[in-house]
Formats: sequence, C-alpha cells, structure tokens
Amino acid sequence: MDSSSDDEKWEVPTFARHRKPPPGTESIGYDLYESPQYMNHLKQFGRLSGMDVCNNIGFRWILLGMVGLVTGLVAVAVDVSIDYLFEFRMHINDVVVDAGWSIGCQYLAFVGVALCSVSVAAYLVCYVEVLAAGSGIPEIKCFLNGIDFPNVVGLKTLCAKAIGIVFSVTAGLPCGKEGPMIHSGAITGALVTRCDILHTINPVVIQQETRDFVAAGAAAGVAAAFGAPLGGVLFAVEEGASHMDPSIMTRLFVACATGALASRFFIGPILGGIPWGHLGSAVPVSFGKFHHMEWDILEMPIFAMMGVAGGLFGALFNAVNQRLSEWRIRHIGPRGRRRFFEVLLVTLVVSSLQFLVPAVSVASKEFSLSEEGVGSLPSQLHLRSLSESEESQLPLRRHLKLEELSLSESLFWQKNTAALKSLFHSEEEFNLWYVLLFFVMNLSLSCLTYGIGVPSGLFVPALLTGAAFGRIVGQLLHSYVFPISEGQLFAATGLYSLIGASAMLAGTARITISLAMILMEVTGNAEFGLPIFLVVMLAKWTGDVFNRGIYDLHIIDLKKVPLLEAKPETNMIGIFGFVYVV
Amino acid sequence: MDSSSDDEKWEVPTFARHRKPPPGTESIGYDLYESPQYMNHLKQFGRLSGMDVCNNIGFRWILLGMVGLVTGLVAVAVDVSIDYLFEFRMHINDVVVDAGWSIGCQYLAFVGVALCSVSVAAYLVCYVEVLAAGSGIPEIKCFLNGIDFPNVVGLKTLCAKAIGIVFSVTAGLPCGKEGPMIHSGAITGALVTRCDILHTINPVVIQQETRDFVAAGAAAGVAAAFGAPLGGVLFAVEEGASHMDPSIMTRLFVACATGALASRFFIGPILGGIPWGHLGSAVPVSFGKFHHMEWDILEMPIFAMMGVAGGLFGALFNAVNQRLSEWRIRHIGPRGRRRFFEVLLVTLVVSSLQFLVPAVSVASKEFSLSEEGVGSLPSQLHLRSLSESEESQLPLRRHLKLEELSLSESLFWQKNTAALKSLFHSEEEFNLWYVLLFFVMNLSLSCLTYGIGVPSGLFVPALLTGAAFGRIVGQLLHSYVFPISEGQLFAATGLYSLIGASAMLAGTARITISLAMILMEVTGNAEFGLPIFLVVMLAKWTGDVFNRGIYDLHIIDLKKVPLLEAKPETNMIGIFGFVYVV
Repeated sequence: MDSSSDDEKWEVPTFARHRKPPPGTESIGYDLYESPQYMNHLKQFGRLSGMDVCNNIGFRWILLGMVGLVTGLVAVAVDVSIDYLFEFRMHINDVVVDAGWSIGCQYLAFVGVALCSVSVAAYLVCYVEVLAAGSGIPEIKCFLNGIDFPNVVGLKTLCAKAIGIVFSVTAGLPCGKEGPMIHSGAITGALVTRCDILHTINPVVIQQETRDFVAAGAAAGVAAAFGAPLGGVLFAVEEGASHMDPSIMTRLFVACATGALASRFFIGPILGGIPWGHLGSAVPVSFGKFHHMEWDILEMPIFAMMGVAGGLFGALFNAVNQRLSEWRIRHIGPRGRRRFFEVLLVTLVVSSLQFLVPAVSVASKEFSLSEEGVGSLPSQLHLRSLSESEESQLPLRRHLKLEELSLSESLFWQKNTAALKSLFHSEEEFNLWYVLLFFVMNLSLSCLTYGIGVPSGLFVPALLTGAAFGRIVGQLLHSYVFPISEGQLFAATGLYSLIGASAMLAGTARITISLAMILMEVTGNAEFGLPIFLVVMLAKWTGDVFNRGIYDLHIIDLKKVPLLEAKPETNMIGIFGFVYVV
Repeated sequence: MDSSSDDEKWEVPTFARHRKPPPGTESIGYDLYESPQYMNHLKQFGRLSGMDVCNNIGFRWILLGMVGLVTGLVAVAVDVSIDYLFEFRMHINDVVVDAGWSIGCQYLAFVGVALCSVSVAAYLVCYVEVLAAGSGIPEIKCFLNGIDFPNVVGLKTLCAKAIGIVFSVTAGLPCGKEGPMIHSGAITGALVTRCDILHTINPVVIQQETRDFVAAGAAAGVAAAFGAPLGGVLFAVEEGASHMDPSIMTRLFVACATGALASRFFIGPILGGIPWGHLGSAVPVSFGKFHHMEWDILEMPIFAMMGVAGGLFGALFNAVNQRLSEWRIRHIGPRGRRRFFEVLLVTLVVSSLQFLVPAVSVASKEFSLSEEGVGSLPSQLHLRSLSESEESQLPLRRHLKLEELSLSESLFWQKNTAALKSLFHSEEEFNLWYVLLFFVMNLSLSCLTYGIGVPSGLFVPALLTGAAFGRIVGQLLHSYVFPISEGQLFAATGLYSLIGASAMLAGTARITISLAMILMEVTGNAEFGLPIFLVVMLAKWTGDVFNRGIYDLHIIDLKKVPLLEAKPETNMIGIFGFVYVV
C-alpha cells in the first residue's frame, strides 16, 4: 500500500483528522522469507550453527525483559506522580478552605487548578505530538496489523503520552491511565529493538521483530498498569492483532512477567507501605481484594441481564462517541488552538459538575431538613438520604473538603481508582440517588472526554460507570428481593459492582477473555471467573448487534484505516475473489 | 497428503506401532474457500441475508455450550466414580485387616484388587480401542494440526477412555485423569457437530468447523478437569494447534465456561458437601486454596534454580520415556496379549512398592526404636523421624490401614490428588527421607507407566513428583537457611511445593503460560503468578536444550507424524524453497 503517492485513489476521507493518509504512512512487511540477504545475515552471525542457542535464545529474552522492566518503571513513575499530584491538588483546596475563602472563590480555585493541570496535557497533544491523544490502543492495533503511522512508536510520543496522562488524570477528567500505559509500553518495545547491540534481531526481518517487540511492550503495559501479567498476554493476543502466531505468547509472557514484577516491586513499598522486597499477597492489588466471592446459581439470570444492559450502555456510548468524533473531525481538527480550547471547555464543564454536585447536595439537604419535604420521593430512599445527612452531622458549612464529604458525595471528588474501590468494597450502603447521578454523569462525561486532545484511557471510566450501575442493582436487590439478613450465600453488593463494571467495559471495548483475566488478577481472586465470563460475553454480543467496539470504531469507521480482520466480514463474502486476494 | 495410497514413499517407520500410516489416515482441509457449493449453501440457509444474526450467532453458541456441558458431566462422572471406587478399594483393605489376615495375605489382596481394577482399563485399550491409551493429548494435537487418525474422535474411543481412566486411577497407578478428560472433551466436541439440527455448521467447511469444536472440547476438558476455565482456553491455544486464529478464543471461552460451571456445580455438593446451587469461593478448588502467598525478592534465585532443576528432571523423564517407548514399539506392539500383560506387570510392581514402603518402614522404625541406632543419619532428620513415630504411637502392628499411617507414609497410599494436597498444604513437616523416596519412586514409576496400555494422564504425576521435590527444598531451607520463626515473610513450605510442581510439569510437557494459569485457578489465587512464571519459563528453556516436550516427542520422534509447527526448525531454514512450499 504505497499510500502517500496516489492520493486521488482514496474516495473516502481516511486516517481521520487528515482526510487522507498522512504522508509517510506505510504498510509493514510481516512475511517470513528466505531472501539471499537474510540467509547471508544468518550465516554471518552463526545463526545456522552452534551459536544459535546462546545468541538467538539468550539475548532476545534479555531484550524482552528490558521491555518489561522499562515499561514497568514508566508505569510506576506515572502512578506515583498521579498519586502525589492529586493529593497536592486536594491540598490546595484545603488551603483555600482554611484561608476562609467563600464557596465561590473555592469553586474558582478548584476549577482553575484543574484547568492549569489539563492545559499541560493539552499542550503536549495539540502542539507537540498529536498521536499522544486518546488511549493509543487503536493506533497500536493498527501497527500490529501492519499499518505504520509515522511517529506512532517514537520517543516524542512516549514522552508526550506519559507526561500528559499524569496531568489529565490529575485534572479530574474521567479518563484512565491504563490505555496510555499500554501505548507507552508499545513504544518502549519499539525503542528497545534499537538497543540490540548483539545483533540478535535480524536487520532483514526487522519489521517482524519490531512487531513482536511492540506487542510485547503493549502487553507489558497492561501487565504493569494493572499488575496483571496474564491479563497482559491475553490482551495482546485478543485485541492486539488479528494475525498472530501463538508462539509469540512466550515472548509476551516474558515481557509481561518482568513488567508486572517491576511495577509490583515498587508500588508495594511506595504506595502500599510494605517493606521493600516483599511480594505476593502482601502487595495490595490495584482494585482491592475481594475475600468472599460466593454466589448462587439463581443469581445467574440477574447477572445475564446485567450483561445485556452493559452491552446496551456500551453500544449507546459508542454510537454517541462516534457522532461526537465525526463532528470533531469536521470542526476541530487534529491539533492547534481549537483543539486546545475544546479541552479547556470540557475540563471546565467536568470540574464544575464535580464541584457543584456535593455543594448543591449540601444545600438541598439543608433545605429538605428545614422544610421536611418528604412528599414526592419514594419514602425509603428519601429517608435513607435524610438519615445519612443526619448521621454525618453536616453543619451549615459553606466550604467543601474531600475528607468531610459523605461516602456517596466523595464519589464525585475522589480519584477514579479510589471511587472504584469504594464502589467495590464499601460495606456501608450508598445513597442510591447519588450513585444514579454519578452513573449518568460519568457515562456522559467520559463519552464527551474520549476524543479530546489529551491522553485519556477508557478502561477505568468504563469500569467506574459500570460499577455504579452494578451497585444500584445490588443495593436494590438486597433491599427488596433477597435481604442479606436471611443468612443466604447470595453475592454481596460489591460483587454486583464488579459484574456491572465487567459488563460496561465489555460492552464498550468488546474485549472479553482478557478483560475477565485482568479483573481476576486485579481483585486477586480466581474464583469469580464464571459470572464475569457470562457477563462479558453477553455484553459483547449485545453490543455487536448495534455497532463496533470503540477501538475498531475509531480505526475503521473514523480513521478509515484498512484494518484486516482475521475473518472477512459477512458482506464481503461473495465478492468474487475476495478471499484469494487476501 | 493422500497417505494411504503410496506406502513405499515413507522411508521412516511412521505413526508408530503401525510402522506406516494406518490405513484411513487423512489430512484435513482447513482452508477458508469460496467454492460455488459453499456460496450456494450460504444462500440456501439465508446466511447472506438477515437470518445471519439468529442462525449463525445463536445456535452455534448453544452447540458450544453443549460441548462444555457434556464434557463437564463426563468429568464429574469420572471424578465421582474414581472417588467412590478408590474408597471402596480402601474399604476392602480395611475388611481384610479387620478379618485378621496376615500381612502377606493383606499384600496379596491389595495387589489383587489393583490388578482386577487395572485389567478393566487394559482390556479396553488392548482389545477394544487402542487410541484410548495414554493421555490422548498427542493425538488431539495431531488432529488440530490437520492429521486425522481414524477413530481418534469416535464414540468408542470416548467410552474406552472415560471408563478406562476410572479404573487405571483406582488401581493406584501414577497417572492422572486430566489428560484423558481433555481427550474425552475433544471427542465430545466432534460428536456434537453431528447434532447440528439447524444446519448452522456448513457441511462444505465441516472440517474447519469440526476442528474448532474439537479444540473447544479439549479446552472444556481442561476447564472441567481442573475447574479452570481460562486455563482451558490457554491450553488449547498454546498446546493445541500451531496455526490457530485468535478469534477462535471466544468459542473456546464459551465451551470452557460451561464446562467449568457444570463441573463446579456438581462437584461442590457431591464431593465438597456444600448446598446445591452455591458457587464461587464456597466450592473447594481442585488442589486446595492457598491463603497466604507472600514471598521475598531474595527467594527469586532459589525459585530460578528450582526451575532449572525441574527442566533437568523433565528432560531426564522424557529421554528415558523415549527409550522405553521405542523399546515398546519394537517388542510389545499396539494391542493384544503382550500389551495386556505388560500392564499387569507394571501394576504389580507399582502396587507392591506402594504396599511395601509403609510396611517396611513400620518394621524398620520398630527396629530403630529398639536398637537406638542413630549413628549414620543426619541427626536432626533422624530425630524428627523418631519423634514422629513416637507421636503416632505405633503398636507392633502387622497390618496397614490408610487412616493409621503417618503423614509421610500415607503419601504412598493416598489418591494422587490427596497426596498433592497434603504436600501443598500440610502445616506439619514431612519426614524428608520418605519424601525423597516418594520423589524417586514417583519419578521412575510414572516414567514407566506413561506408555503402557491404559488411559493415563501425565499432569498430576508430574505435579506430584515436583511437589515432593519442592517440599524437600522448602523444608531444608526453612530448617537450615531461614527458619520461619524469625517472623520474616518468606514463602511457606507449601509454596515451595507449588513451585516444584510447576517446574516439573513445565520441564516435562513444556507448557508454560497455560500451566501457570491452571495453577492459579486450581489454587484459587491470582497473586503467586510471578514466581510460577519465572519457574515454568526456566524449566521449559532448560528442558528444550536437551530434547522435545513429552507430547511432541511422542508425536514427532515416536509416531513420526509430520506435525507442522508454527515456525520452521532451525535446521530447515536454508533448505531451498522450504517456506514457500509450506
């Protein structure tokens, strides 16, 4: 596909935001072949003789381990930076409150800090490297399928992505660090191939080798981001490439194990406070450990319905995001001022809502306490809201601090992962109206956010939306259908959150088996696999009835990249000679 | 490969035990093509119109679910039968003891029952269906790579295999039920394609479809045997086929989830005594759950050395088994009287040793107690052996009952899985001499057993050998290097057993990622993955220096089947045009 030359051939606008393939786009040669050059190279480095074992086997594994290690270190740096910067942001808020500023000034400070933070990320995308935008998974999927955007695995992209994601998460945008970490890992993989001092990697088949290293890096990115080595391998196999050789799995495996080890080795002591060098169940898993994961066969239909619902929400998300992205492609463009201001605008909306929900809720609760207006709401829910506000003994405060918010209110202020943990593990019941509001807000805001000019992953926002949905279902069921007090072994509310999270992410991204694996690893428990499987499959099938997964949608429908899937699509079968050409 | 016609072309004895391809061996056509027949078929069943969704998607998944369900039920039946029959065998022994027979008569009864039991299994293999022998994994691997032995996925083979394995395990042979369950699952997959009443499966591409169903069945077999759904998927992808499309993973996934669900649904109440319908962490996992899996980074070199050792033991096992199998191919043949008597002979040896070890050990302990001969043995070990025998207050008994044996002695009498659980989880320390004897005996006897004319899997014997090795290392380390009393978080002895088990199986069968996954699922814990990864990779690499994995060895070196691997072997590169022909 020598696409840069004959532009007039392209009838559809393609590789979006450019309307035609960007100059320099190439396809990648992934065939194994026996050219004279290749044979000469092999002979030169003794690859056909006894050197084979030490040279070919040994050093390549060291390189793969290096991919994992560097990816793991990048992930740790990102993780720790986000943690400290987010804490710093909350500290600024506390300082403002303690200085006695009014709620209006506090609001301005809150939003201002978010805008400052996000403008770093937006600058990196809009003026430095446009490929750092979004999660990067679509671009990597393209690369692994043979389409080489210029710079997609360049050092500049790595820096822009890794630094940018720290600031976009700190700004409180509904975006996760995991997708960008996968992209960072992939870039690391490509960069490491250049450090091949022993000439293990054949220059003649460098593209093949680079593909394997990029896949290994992407897998190591998942492994490091979630601490889920097997999830990483499966993600690369399932989502990465349509035409992948199973023997590549061993390479992925090595990179993933190293990546996960590096990330867990440092995260445990730095953020978890355990002594250096202790590993295993001592290190906290990313989303907190579930200890009791019982469930009853009778709950299976409920899980199934949640899977279908997750598929529907996911399809809705994808459809809206597609329209939005099409509008953006037409009116905003890939870089420059317009895209920068769009980011600021979106951040303004997001952080205003985040600030206002607890602020208004305090006001309205004070109002409802004074007026005793019980009337229109379902009494039980309303009563719980009242009693909760009474319990926490809210003064007629005119300021907001994270630690003074109630459990339900703090959802809106916390870091994404903290909110996810509280939805999964909180023993206390949430106020359902807040969770519902959180669900709606998070669904719409993450849809609005995915596609703006900052690095932003989809994993955690989707999980969070789904967890809120699951929490609602779980609490309603436990209140009305089977109260836990009966002493039955029905699944806990937290497990319903986990099911909801799986359903939503599977409905959006249409990943199944690797998602199940990642969720098993981030909750440290291999026993709740079966309901998660059921749910992700149903969510994927339901979603597939309506549209493509969000990554394929961005690749095929928006960027118009000619992605070659493993199987021809149904409407292709019967076009004469299609399969032969392929 | 129309192999049945021109026999004289084959210069090497091939498809062993027949010296030439058995008549009827065919290759399988796995290409996607667009013949006029295929297009007509698609049109006829509306596959190119709107029927697509309900017909193509819906019913195929139901069929795949059926594969999982039937495989799960077969696994449950095998599991429960083994449990009851083994208990019955021990009951017979107890009756003999209670009747006051002498130790000689008890020995005869013990061996006699084993011989009766094994002769059922041997009859099924030697006179009914020779393909029921062994684990069946090599044959299924051949099938998935396009070589179709006659009857390999036939109903007769299924019955012979499923019934046979019950009796060979009951006889106390060092063989596992897991390999045969994988073969049973694969057969179930092939049989289910015949129940395709809605014509979902295109008759024109029936071989492709059958391959997918056989792969799904094999995966469901793993899933049901171990209760490890993801392990099943990975096993099929890693070990099953060299040329497999990642999109097949979804199909495997559905079959595996159903298979694991069916097996866990029934096993929990029947063997675990929990109420019907309760699932999740309530159901006991196959090899018992580890609760604390801490380890220290300093232990990594020890794990690594254990991995290398596992690779060496595995390579030794494979080399000896290869010589043994070559001898068997020359002198015993595939079926008939000779093979039957070989089985009886091996069983006689195995069960005699099993009986004699505790019997002799009782005698020698009485001897050492009376003579107080401490001299030559390392004092600490010997003292522990003495104190253990004092604790259990052995009378000068002249009979043996399973429940009266000490912890270390009972290793030799227990069911394989029970012995494995006790090596993994026992808090009490084993007598190291017994464990060492058990290790040597199990290594040599399982090597002797693999290849005789009974259904016999390799998984559990290899795990057991490795667990004994790991236990030895663990106990020695805890006694001499870092005593647990220091309050450090070093790995428990049981974890060393787990590491040893992983190393041994990876060294023998050279499976890596799926083995790690299975071990994570059977211990219910996703947090000990990293050391297991390290160990299985090192064991595989070490083993690969010396010879092939046991399955490939049986396929390529012994049966001389032309298996096509994903990558050409090094000595093939350079043969002109090799890659083009492939």
